Amino acid sequence: MDKINPRLLQGFRDFLPEKKRQRDWMINQVKSVYESFGFSPLETPVLEFSDILLGKYGEEAKRLMYRFKDQGERDVSMRYDLTVPFARVIAQYPELVKPFKRYQVAPVWRADSPQAGRYREFYQFDVDVAGSSSTLADSEMVNLISTSMQSLGIAKFNIRINNRKVLNGLIEWAKIDKDDSTKVFQLIDKIEKISAEDFEKSLLDILSASQTEKILEFVKTKGINSQIIAKLKEIFVDNSIGLEGTEELEETVNYLQAAEVDMDIIKIDLSIARGLDYYTGIVYETILLDAPEFGSVFSGGRYDELIGYFIGTNVPAVGVSLGVDRLFAAMEKLELLPKVTDGTQVLVTVFEENPTDSVKIAQILRENNIKTEIYLGGKSALGPQLTYANKLAVPVCVITFADQVAKDIYTVKKMTEKFGENEQIETNFDGLIDTVKKMLE
Amino acid sequence: MDKINPRLLQGFRDFLPEKKRQRDWMINQVKSVYESFGFSPLETPVLEFSDILLGKYGEEAKRLMYRFKDQGERDVSMRYDLTVPFARVIAQYPELVKPFKRYQVAPVWRADSPQAGRYREFYQFDVDVAGSSSTLADSEMVNLISTSMQSLGIAKFNIRINNRKVLNGLIEWAKIDKDDSTKVFQLIDKIEKISAEDFEKSLLDILSASQTEKILEFVKTKGINSQIIAKLKEIFVDNSIGLEGTEELEETVNYLQAAEVDMDIIKIDLSIARGLDYYTGIVYETILLDAPEFGSVFSGGRYDELIGYFIGTNVPAVGVSLGVDRLFAAMEKLELLPKVTDGTQVLVTVFEENPTDSVKIAQILRENNIKTEIYLGGKSALGPQLTYANKLAVPVCVITFADQVAKDIYTVKKMTEKFGENEQIETNFDGLIDTVKKMLE
Repeated sequence: MDKINPRLLQGFRDFLPEKKRQRDWMINQVKSVYESFGFSPLETPVLEFSDILLGKYGEEAKRLMYRFKDQGERDVSMRYDLTVPFARVIAQYPELVKPFKRYQVAPVWRADSPQAGRYREFYQFDVDVAGSSSTLADSEMVNLISTSMQSLGIAKFNIRINNRKVLNGLIEWAKIDKDDSTKVFQLIDKIEKISAEDFEKSLLDILSASQTEKILEFVKTKGINSQIIAKLKEIFVDNSIGLEGTEELEETVNYLQAAEVDMDIIKIDLSIARGLDYYTGIVYETILLDAPEFGSVFSGGRYDELIGYFIGTNVPAVGVSLGVDRLFAAMEKLELLPKVTDGTQVLVTVFEENPTDSVKIAQILRENNIKTEIYLGGKSALGPQLTYANKLAVPVCVITFADQVAKDIYTVKKMTEKFGENEQIETNFDGLIDTVKKMLE
Repeated sequence: MDKINPRLLQGFRDFLPEKKRQRDWMINQVKSVYESFGFSPLETPVLEFSDILLGKYGEEAKRLMYRFKDQGERDVSMRYDLTVPFARVIAQYPELVKPFKRYQVAPVWRADSPQAGRYREFYQFDVDVAGSSSTLADSEMVNLISTSMQSLGIAKFNIRINNRKVLNGLIEWAKIDKDDSTKVFQLIDKIEKISAEDFEKSLLDILSASQTEKILEFVKTKGINSQIIAKLKEIFVDNSIGLEGTEELEETVNYLQAAEVDMDIIKIDLSIARGLDYYTGIVYETILLDAPEFGSVFSGGRYDELIGYFIGTNVPAVGVSLGVDRLFAAMEKLELLPKVTDGTQVLVTVFEENPTDSVKIAQILRENNIKTEIYLGGKSALGPQLTYANKLAVPVCVITFADQVAKDIYTVKKMTEKFGENEQIETNFDGLIDTVKKMLE
């Protein structure tokens, strides 16, 4: 048989143990925060009927979705995000008590061009509430971001918030045709990635000079949150949708203040639009101040109409999504990831004369909640077994020479970085567990 | 826009919070056992190049694999099990220290006919060692099964073990053509699902009468483990491969005894073959005595040649796979699943007059590690808020009437099953946390 070249698809990755443990650590930290806010876990399938997913995200998604015919000629697609499946769940199980609060952490797939920090398979970690139109829910989302980031030991970040109703108000205020609004929002969303000149030029491709001027005035509105809110109230004095969005922002900010969120990190930013079609109210992004090149690591918003695609009547909903891979890559670069050491604690050696003694010792150590390996590398002298323990950074070895064990002697060896510098203690069977525990301290 | 019918593909499932929590509990219990044996987590992608997966499992798999052309016209397939990707990893990263011990829990996909307890998307939870030909590794696998089952509170089960070398010895002993061996193994594997008559008839379709007789004599060899081993040594007195398999079984059993595994559950069973092509040594299955209809819930074996498909030289390996969905369904039926109650502990009510007070209280409770929800259902009287808490079995509510809060009075209410029978205590702000904690006890 010909050899098969072991390789991965571009944009797909293996996570070897060290990295996998660090990722698990990150996910568990955020999960604890989500749980502390009263959210419950949910899981949806990887494959969905394509019509469930299509038409919810915008044009780009159609091109990027992994879509195929299954064995029964059904048109199926791999999960593109966690929000649309969540909306499907809300529609499918009307018996769910509302407001329904869930979190989900799972991979999603997009056939995007792979580039630094961008993958075709990547994890999202979402939290959403369905059945709440309250700005309290909006502020809980922003609070969740802030608390999650802190739980990961990240101090230097901004959460930028805006509201689609404010942007819709802008469309009205600048007298822009509604059909052009998506294009305008997409341009606004890219404002930081392109030059001011290009931004203006791109606007002029779609809009008149006076319309463009109003957009420019709007996105340039900067300052502290209260100043921006005051300015918006001025602009939207006769514009009910814009005013509604402005008041929602104001309430959200007030609740965040009451929750003692550090208000220096909360920035109303009128240039935030978010690319996805389904947003209807508040939207937010999270930028790492020391690594802005990673883009937003924690994003989301309100989507009051998405569930309505499935049941005909709207159910208000709001959510936030952590880009696990992006944040992980950024934390790696910023050296913010802790060294996770929850692997094997003890290696029990094995010698040809008495392997069952090793099995017995391992069993007793495990019964005492010590993570224990038996050396499985086959017939071997002591040297290679200690080398194995060193390579895997196993902190303690129990050495089981047959002649020693026969005399009730066990050698407990503390492994240090340099071979030969190891500290070791001989003990009898009764003292073994205590000796190991002491060495592990 | 037309409404889209919210629905799932047949054989695919959503896990709503209660079930998801129970599944997470199961996975965490088993993960703790795997970790206690010194295994580390690994993750591989859902999509692989098809040639990585094809040709490793047997004929059936080709038909059942979700396989398609991606946007770049690459021939890709969804993960069919976790073992072949593991073998690919071992081949791809020669720098991994051997023996390499990993666990992985993840969904796999097979376009099988959905039936009771059988899904097209289901979870496997695997543990494998690569780079060990030792029977110590074989016995560790069986020990892992036994310990995992105990960690789930399951007492009544059998682990049936056999060895492919013993079966290969049988082929030689019965003078059967090697090309027919796969068919014979597949028949033996199905022995419990068909009648004795049909089994014999099916054998006679492939084999001569004298060959069939030998197979029947062999699979009928029953008794305690030592008796079976004695009988095999007799049969294989001149058959080196059969003898090698027999000795491996004997060593494995001895190690299990040394590890104080309950030997009443370990049954050498010569009718166990396991369907997959890649097994080469020990194989095992786990049957629930009170729910044998679920089939094997924990299975695996040794596959010393699979990694060789990728690198040309063989790397010995052995593993075991927990059928998460199957075991979960069986535990559900046997009422062995614990009620998992790690949801919200406190609901803080919200009233129109003073929502920021609710935000403040929630924040303080969360800071004291109490899982806390703010009521997000919008403007509401107390009744619907308490009903919400009752429906979700939230044990404690903190009631924040504006006029009370103004006088530093908070009502802490213990929710019981019957509305109206609730116990409640009034406290001031300073006593709030203690009062809540006492009620939660």
